[in-house]
Amino acid sequence: MREGATSRGLLPGAGADAKLLAVCLNPAWDITYQVSALRPGASHTTAVIAERAGGKGTNVARTLHQLQRPVHLIGLRGGAQGDLLHDQLLQAGIDCSFAPIKESTRRSITVVDGDEATVFNETGPLVTEREWDAFVALFADMLIGTAAVAISGSLPPGLPVDGYARLTALANEADVPVVLDAVGAPFSSAIGEHPAIAAPNRAEIVDTFGWDLPDRDAVVAAAHRICELGASSAVISSGTEGLVAQGDGRSWSARPPRLVEGNPTGAGDALTAALVDGLATGGDWPQMLRHCIAWSAAAVATPWAGELDEEVLREMLDATQVEEI
Amino acid sequence: MREGATSRGLLPGAGADAKLLAVCLNPAWDITYQVSALRPGASHTTAVIAERAGGKGTNVARTLHQLQRPVHLIGLRGGAQGDLLHDQLLQAGIDCSFAPIKESTRRSITVVDGDEATVFNETGPLVTEREWDAFVALFADMLIGTAAVAISGSLPPGLPVDGYARLTALANEADVPVVLDAVGAPFSSAIGEHPAIAAPNRAEIVDTFGWDLPDRDAVVAAAHRICELGASSAVISSGTEGLVAQGDGRSWSARPPRLVEGNPTGAGDALTAALVDGLATGGDWPQMLRHCIAWSAAAVATPWAGELDEEVLREMLDATQVEEI
Repeated sequence: MREGATSRGLLPGAGADAKLLAVCLNPAWDITYQVSALRPGASHTTAVIAERAGGKGTNVARTLHQLQRPVHLIGLRGGAQGDLLHDQLLQAGIDCSFAPIKESTRRSITVVDGDEATVFNETGPLVTEREWDAFVALFADMLIGTAAVAISGSLPPGLPVDGYARLTALANEADVPVVLDAVGAPFSSAIGEHPAIAAPNRAEIVDTFGWDLPDRDAVVAAAHRICELGASSAVISSGTEGLVAQGDGRSWSARPPRLVEGNPTGAGDALTAALVDGLATGGDWPQMLRHCIAWSAAAVATPWAGELDEEVLREMLDATQVEEI
Repeated sequence: MREGATSRGLLPGAGADAKLLAVCLNPAWDITYQVSALRPGASHTTAVIAERAGGKGTNVARTLHQLQRPVHLIGLRGGAQGDLLHDQLLQAGIDCSFAPIKESTRRSITVVDGDEATVFNETGPLVTEREWDAFVALFADMLIGTAAVAISGSLPPGLPVDGYARLTALANEADVPVVLDAVGAPFSSAIGEHPAIAAPNRAEIVDTFGWDLPDRDAVVAAAHRICELGASSAVISSGTEGLVAQGDGRSWSARPPRLVEGNPTGAGDALTAALVDGLATGGDWPQMLRHCIAWSAAAVATPWAGELDEEVLREMLDATQVEEI
């Protein structure tokens, strides 16, 4: 165990009005189409169901905003999609600042066909070194007065693979604890810079490290290893099977009291939001993990990533059990 | 046979520098993605291969522009995609005027997976009556000094089903011959207003009238019936099988001398472009139909709709045979 999680404010926190920061380096303009039946090779007439600002960090900020947490979203944006995204977030009342880039913010297309969703994610804009440096300066400025920061999602092309490591180091220098939800080399390199909480899901750990995680014991061991690699604590979600956490030298597991049907996209972002909120507001590990389960389940219960069903949220906060293992 | 085709300038034409007009009421911002394999229900990371101004009328204008014909493109545009489309056409040197609309110009997404292309066409913006009236006024203005006009493609939502009929009637009042390539009720209602050439493809006739068109004789009979319904002449393409035409009381057939491999999207637009050019520049039916085959084949030989392979064009102009039937 590293002492970071406690010393950086997990217990006790800076209070419910503490300023939170969410980072979204590769936001997306999410377009959802409905088709009667998806037939590869065919031409389809599609109704546009929704166009929304997305990306993992954007969903984290939306979730915190819905629960009246004072959150500021920062990221990179460019082109027509960047303008659409920025305008929509401002209209939704979400405080945000984006460093400008020359290439266009990516799109993500979801084609809904009955219960099935087929997704096409553009890789994202090629960000120049100069644009990245400008973002890093914005990030450093925004850390002032921030109680905790969530860093999540993919890096757009052109960014150095240690981009999240650099941001995590800067946050630690400013004494701002980091929740990190990422995958691959950007994740593994940032762990070495001691984020307060590493919060990948089980599949992301498999993708990053190639570890075999067949059961809960293996996931608990993975959480230990992630702490040994540098994270102060680790929270690993296995979706509907719940989560395990390793922090302050102890291990916990938590799972939802019932299966919630709906759209799992955004559940991980709600969990990240609950963690960054927990880091800022304090409280004990069982309470924070109860929030993680409840926020995630409440996210599944709504059709759109970044939104929570507040009835499910209240139900789950009451009913979720956390056990030390 | 109606006398319109001749009296309106098919023989002889107004000359090679005669101004042409292309109408695109429902242009599209065409986005092409490449995926390694399209799997319904999966999430794909996609490379953006191209983003281009599209829509049938836009392709007609691009084709004529490539061949240095003086063409002006008019249509409706709105939102971020409308801006992108307008900027790209201007940068390509294509003379164009778009009446503004409040809703956004549609997107069309093509997902290329090896040789297979899967297309998602948004239906398009809801156009208000006031916006439509503004376009009709623009169209009437643009007819002045125009030698021939091509009207092609779909109507965006909100437009009256007799939209093309109204435009065709206005063109006839201004003594400007019309090439009409459309489908369904917008097509059948406009035929009654006597376009100089009705130019649907075989599938569009089947979709519009429900006629059974198993062989060339049936297509020739269909061309007759379309003239009886009001068109001065008719040119019906059956793709690689060639075309049949009915005009000036005579029937012709023409087919490419060899199969050209490539992308058939835009071949019909190249044919429409050859027809509107033929109406303006004059020449006899066999010559115009040779151009139709050659321009279409040259369009197939390029990967992008609205572009011609000029080597294939020259080859086909020499080699295509037209026979009276």
